[in-house]
Amino acid sequence: MEEINFFSPASVANVSCGFDVLGFCLDPIGDEMVVRRTVAPGVKISKIEGQDLPFDVKKNVAGVAAEALLKEFPVDFGFEIEIYKKIKAGSGIGSSAASAAGSVYGINELLGRPFTAHELVSFAMEGESVACGAAHADNVAPVLLGGITLVRSTAPLEVIKLPSPSELTAVILHPKIELKTLHAREILKKNVSMEKAVQQWGNLGAFVSALYQEDYELMSRSLKDGIVEPMRSLLIPNFENLKKASKDAGAIGFGISGSGPSVFALTQGLKTAKEVAEALKKNISSIGIDFELHISNINNQGIKVIAD
Amino acid sequence: MEEINFFSPASVANVSCGFDVLGFCLDPIGDEMVVRRTVAPGVKISKIEGQDLPFDVKKNVAGVAAEALLKEFPVDFGFEIEIYKKIKAGSGIGSSAASAAGSVYGINELLGRPFTAHELVSFAMEGESVACGAAHADNVAPVLLGGITLVRSTAPLEVIKLPSPSELTAVILHPKIELKTLHAREILKKNVSMEKAVQQWGNLGAFVSALYQEDYELMSRSLKDGIVEPMRSLLIPNFENLKKASKDAGAIGFGISGSGPSVFALTQGLKTAKEVAEALKKNISSIGIDFELHISNINNQGIKVIAD
Repeated sequence: MEEINFFSPASVANVSCGFDVLGFCLDPIGDEMVVRRTVAPGVKISKIEGQDLPFDVKKNVAGVAAEALLKEFPVDFGFEIEIYKKIKAGSGIGSSAASAAGSVYGINELLGRPFTAHELVSFAMEGESVACGAAHADNVAPVLLGGITLVRSTAPLEVIKLPSPSELTAVILHPKIELKTLHAREILKKNVSMEKAVQQWGNLGAFVSALYQEDYELMSRSLKDGIVEPMRSLLIPNFENLKKASKDAGAIGFGISGSGPSVFALTQGLKTAKEVAEALKKNISSIGIDFELHISNINNQGIKVIAD
Repeated sequence: MEEINFFSPASVANVSCGFDVLGFCLDPIGDEMVVRRTVAPGVKISKIEGQDLPFDVKKNVAGVAAEALLKEFPVDFGFEIEIYKKIKAGSGIGSSAASAAGSVYGINELLGRPFTAHELVSFAMEGESVACGAAHADNVAPVLLGGITLVRSTAPLEVIKLPSPSELTAVILHPKIELKTLHAREILKKNVSMEKAVQQWGNLGAFVSALYQEDYELMSRSLKDGIVEPMRSLLIPNFENLKKASKDAGAIGFGISGSGPSVFALTQGLKTAKEVAEALKKNISSIGIDFELHISNINNQGIKVIAD
């Protein structure tokens, strides 16, 4: 195989009680990418459409991730990468993760799969560190493994794929405001109270149990975040009203996607998801902020090859 | 039914990554209790053997728990309680929890089960608050529900029963030193670093997943505690050596039971449990501390009626 063309999806990280560990993969939203083998060694970003991103391999997350992989698997030929960006940078739904994960996925396929999806996560994380200032796995993991993932540990890296209950559906609202990940990181406190930490891990343990049991009511009771959301939600316009509107329309959970400004709602089934989307649309329109709205099932496959 | 005679088991709380939320129920260790209906209204502790505990209903955990139940279900008769104490108070394996849980279990049975096991947990918690200064559920929950339990929330109370993998076996070492729960609480910090909190909830989420998957290796990797153990282990003689000895002998986890001084090891299977017990015995003997040692499966039933 000389060339591969695929869809690299958006993802939601920092899912409520699972700050820095829990993420899930989306379906209809994502970038297209082409990775092509070249005679010349090394990595080249040959095309970027849809967004103004650096072509310099050392500054582009896809390039950094690709070089991290090739450092562990040196070859005497090279790769060029085309990125057709659909996920907006800074939207909070894993734009850089899609590029980083896609790049190592494509190269690994063309090399005959020397690495497992789990191993690819660590290369993609190196790409992520260019975008976020920290090598976190909670977006690249669901893109590469599909479904809902839990990062048990980053050093050494261990990611667990959790069950995705079949009716679980996500609604993503992207209020088009500027919010840099670095700023959203700065607002976080370095310490948390033991009391709130205990509540958080009680909820996360319960949420994991609920996924295995397909218990949507328990998911709803455990999708809470008393630590990060109270701080970061201040940066998102109308957050509490959006949350209330989504819950009133039947959402089982609502929170900040990644470090925002996108927010997500989770529902049981598509019908409720449409009602939640309608409620969010009405609410965000009322304050005059431009937005994008998506409905997605949980993408249990992750990256998908696009047939010719 | 006028009288019920039953076994109320010991339990392990604060299981490594699950501080304040995760507990499991033991089997061979426990108290015997008799609860008997009386014509005279109110609660009376009529007999306590094996330990010097208060007969005053307001000061005895079994009495306080019983009164909490009867406050919600008033009757014009009463109950007397006999307690044959085998679990040593202050040993860290839920001595007060066995009394509190047993008391409400027995009364509920004699009343024709007006309350669910889950509802009994909240009455038993009131008993616990007399012993510990705080109403915690992580010992009484596994005694009343059996198996491995997760306290998602204390207000409102919600306890989830997790799966108990069939080969999971516990080894309990009780070094006979004095250690008051209140002191062990004082040593805890009020705040924890966000970094350590994230590691802890990553591990707890992974441990819950491992229980569903019966993945003993993942249980082993996730049975860690970077928050409470580093502080409380300082109060337990030879802790690090005991931990190393148990791991070397094949334990998948090792930690402080409750707030100590008992420690627990978890193993896959009875054979390894016996080897771990032998290693712990050798180690604790070498420093000249008197001890008790128990091997137990996870008691998935909890309290058990003793046939006449």
